[in-house]
Amino acid sequence: MTADTKLSVIVWNEFIQERRDLTSRAIYPEGLHTVIAKALKHPPRHGQSGPELDVTTATQDEPGHGFSEARLSKCDVLIWWGHLGHENVSDDLVERIHRRVLEGMGLIVLHSGHGSKIFRKLLGTSCSLKSRAAEKKERLWVVDPSHPIAAGLGKFFELPTEKMYGESFDIAQPDSTVFISWFPGGEVFRSGCCWDRGYGRLFYFRPGDACKPTFHDTNVQRVLANAVQWVAPRFRFND
Amino acid sequence: MTADTKLSVIVWNEFIQERRDLTSRAIYPEGLHTVIAKALKHPPRHGQSGPELDVTTATQDEPGHGFSEARLSKCDVLIWWGHLGHENVSDDLVERIHRRVLEGMGLIVLHSGHGSKIFRKLLGTSCSLKSRAAEKKERLWVVDPSHPIAAGLGKFFELPTEKMYGESFDIAQPDSTVFISWFPGGEVFRSGCCWDRGYGRLFYFRPGDACKPTFHDTNVQRVLANAVQWVAPRFRFND
Amino acid sequence: MTADTKLSVIVWNEFIQERRDLTSRAIYPEGLHTVIAKALKHPPRHGQSGPELDVTTATQDEPGHGFSEARLSKCDVLIWWGHLGHENVSDDLVERIHRRVLEGMGLIVLHSGHGSKIFRKLLGTSCSLKSRAAEKKERLWVVDPSHPIAAGLGKFFELPTEKMYGESFDIAQPDSTVFISWFPGGEVFRSGCCWDRGYGRLFYFRPGDACKPTFHDTNVQRVLANAVQWVAPRFRFND
Amino acid sequence: MTADTKLSVIVWNEFIQERRDLTSRAIYPEGLHTVIAKALKHPPRHGQSGPELDVTTATQDEPGHGFSEARLSKCDVLIWWGHLGHENVSDDLVERIHRRVLEGMGLIVLHSGHGSKIFRKLLGTSCSLKSRAAEKKERLWVVDPSHPIAAGLGKFFELPTEKMYGESFDIAQPDSTVFISWFPGGEVFRSGCCWDRGYGRLFYFRPGDACKPTFHDTNVQRVLANAVQWVAPRFRFND
Repeated sequence: MTADTKLSVIVWNEFIQERRDLTSRAIYPEGLHTVIAKALKHPPRHGQSGPELDVTTATQDEPGHGFSEARLSKCDVLIWWGHLGHENVSDDLVERIHRRVLEGMGLIVLHSGHGSKIFRKLLGTSCSLKSRAAEKKERLWVVDPSHPIAAGLGKFFELPTEKMYGESFDIAQPDSTVFISWFPGGEVFRSGCCWDRGYGRLFYFRPGDACKPTFHDTNVQRVLANAVQWVAPRFRFND
Repeated sequence: MTADTKLSVIVWNEFIQERRDLTSRAIYPEGLHTVIAKALKHPPRHGQSGPELDVTTATQDEPGHGFSEARLSKCDVLIWWGHLGHENVSDDLVERIHRRVLEGMGLIVLHSGHGSKIFRKLLGTSCSLKSRAAEKKERLWVVDPSHPIAAGLGKFFELPTEKMYGESFDIAQPDSTVFISWFPGGEVFRSGCCWDRGYGRLFYFRPGDACKPTFHDTNVQRVLANAVQWVAPRFRFND
Repeated sequence: MTADTKLSVIVWNEFIQERRDLTSRAIYPEGLHTVIAKALKHPPRHGQSGPELDVTTATQDEPGHGFSEARLSKCDVLIWWGHLGHENVSDDLVERIHRRVLEGMGLIVLHSGHGSKIFRKLLGTSCSLKSRAAEKKERLWVVDPSHPIAAGLGKFFELPTEKMYGESFDIAQPDSTVFISWFPGGEVFRSGCCWDRGYGRLFYFRPGDACKPTFHDTNVQRVLANAVQWVAPRFRFND
Repeated sequence: MTADTKLSVIVWNEFIQERRDLTSRAIYPEGLHTVIAKALKHPPRHGQSGPELDVTTATQDEPGHGFSEARLSKCDVLIWWGHLGHENVSDDLVERIHRRVLEGMGLIVLHSGHGSKIFRKLLGTSCSLKSRAAEKKERLWVVDPSHPIAAGLGKFFELPTEKMYGESFDIAQPDSTVFISWFPGGEVFRSGCCWDRGYGRLFYFRPGDACKPTFHDTNVQRVLANAVQWVAPRFRFND
């Protein structure tokens, strides 16, 4: 990026469940990526300040999974949602995204993206966790209240229905942990985790099952808008 | 310390509630410090290896709160339990303990000790938290499974009845977080936190209400035995 | 702070050496605080984006060291330079600044401020270090290139003449280390360190001897401008 | 591992330079792995305490690079020295070592091993750095004096002749940084870095050029003996 210009943000979605599953389709008829993209175009007030965004979307079934060389090379922030299609993402694209992160592109990995090739490659661990389909509620506690990703939130916020993810979450120790989730079934989870990798920044955010209305939630949209600014690349001289 | 010798461990307790409160006295007739000291003399097998321990106790009502200059200067690891008496601990002793930690003495702060002068002085924050007296259960998840303090534990362990402490816990970001607690009322808490300060090491462990049988619990005793080895000073040349 | 408004920044200086010492006075005739304040009003392009600044100054000899209750309560970011006057700063002010940091005020501590009461209180350590007056050069390496405080810098930058500070620097482990300095005499130093404390953020920056032209340096001014945005408080709801 | 038994330590060396290069051969006639193995069998006193060691060696030209399934599955701590042969290490072995680390095996990567497949896989970054062949001296400063890997060292130690490695070192932020090196040519380097990965621990130690007598140095041997204990797996129940 150069200063004084818009941030180029791509919201990537495998876009499989919303086509196959009636529940998912009812919540996200045009795919969850379109809901995220729309929310980023009109972020909540009082969040983290920063450059304006130029938001587009891409899906797994597009040629090259939606990434030409030119498009990826101009991307400042990539948001990644995948699950059923993880193993079908081309290794070549994973290499190219990895290189772009080390060069400075920001990456936000959502929910089931914990199992994606790119997330495991950046963390060096299995990224495995405990999960359970049926949950009534998730409560996300802010444990790093000065972190920009928590800007505009209270001490916690809740999602009325979400899938459960529990510890132990096999990740590299986060540079910062912003959220810890509580689930009624007895589990906890580090739900908002930050890492630096090369010149780039990585944020993992736990919520976002494709069959839950999570990306319509105002607090979730606030977190994503804040996170885009936090992972966004900083200007640097060639060195 | 010098290598090849025993570690000198002092278990300090304000020893107020066990004298005033019938419930507490029934559980810890001679004070919770004596139960901890006895457990450390016979630590569970399969924990963290290290030097043998020379364990003694001290209480707030002793002259100098139990610390002569000579005694404190030879102490390798201090375990601290306080609550009602926090403000009556002499500032001079707090300064001396602080100096000893920076020189290399290990310090383990238990439960309500989060509000003690020495803990707040070492962390630089208010160390405030949310609490509630009536709780049925605490489940402690291991989130740093390679940490020596978690040696010999499974993925989690439970205490059938404990007081609740919840986030946000106003502490300096831990160098490592070993445990995160789950409480049935909807709270989470960073229950096992590690920091370095000068040549010394600090471990905070959440459980241990004076009216609960926590220090009789095998897993808790294992954590304390491991933690003593982890905070213990390392040999160093004069420099 | 509230979003959409200017950040209130106070540059505080004990302002002693520039009055006593001819070398210092020649470099900073009106005090180093005025040079810093002027630079922040015209920050270099290509740095970290964020709200505009409302910059004022204060000195130790003013009534209340320049801080009325009202003024401190509205301050978003405080920059602190002290040395000879550390012990004469009132304990009451130190308590009030400490409280403000925990509430969310950003604090930037410069150079000899490592020995100030407020820095030691926030870190919990002695903050001692090794120092030597006569040095020819300091080279600061960027070791966290994705950090906002390094925005617009190359792999390293140099100051032609500075006082030497060397390890071991007795501080709490930084949440992030942005710079490591190299000195020709054989020393290294963690020169740019970040910590969270409560709702507030703290940045320590090593350079800035009162007898060296450091605060006239473009890279130093860029670091300070970036750091003001990094420590600035985020909007939050009352909670 | 099980408690009460010896730690199984394997010192692995590609063993190429000592056969090709006269300087290297003169210093390490039987390979640098044999010097390291011998030193671990007689560690310096006053270091980190822990179980006794059962030390063996392996080299790249052995069948399976020296690792049968059975041998790797019993290994508690692996020490890795590679350089010219990095790309010829089989991907299958890298996968198996990676899995063993996540299961709890400790890994110590030396010097040019920063470019090995296993190190890059565990960190998720390029692990690139700046280097220069001709250096007269390296001074390693202890910046985490309470860390077990620094046990028995003073404030710093020196190697009279070593290759230079400089920042920026493209690594995941270390969980702890134990050493920072100073080089006369103007560079600094994070020379002793610790990370957790799964149930395993990883330590990177910078010194150890195959043409320098580094592994004959007493302080280096002390660091390696301490590091073996630090990365060693802890007992755990099946979970």
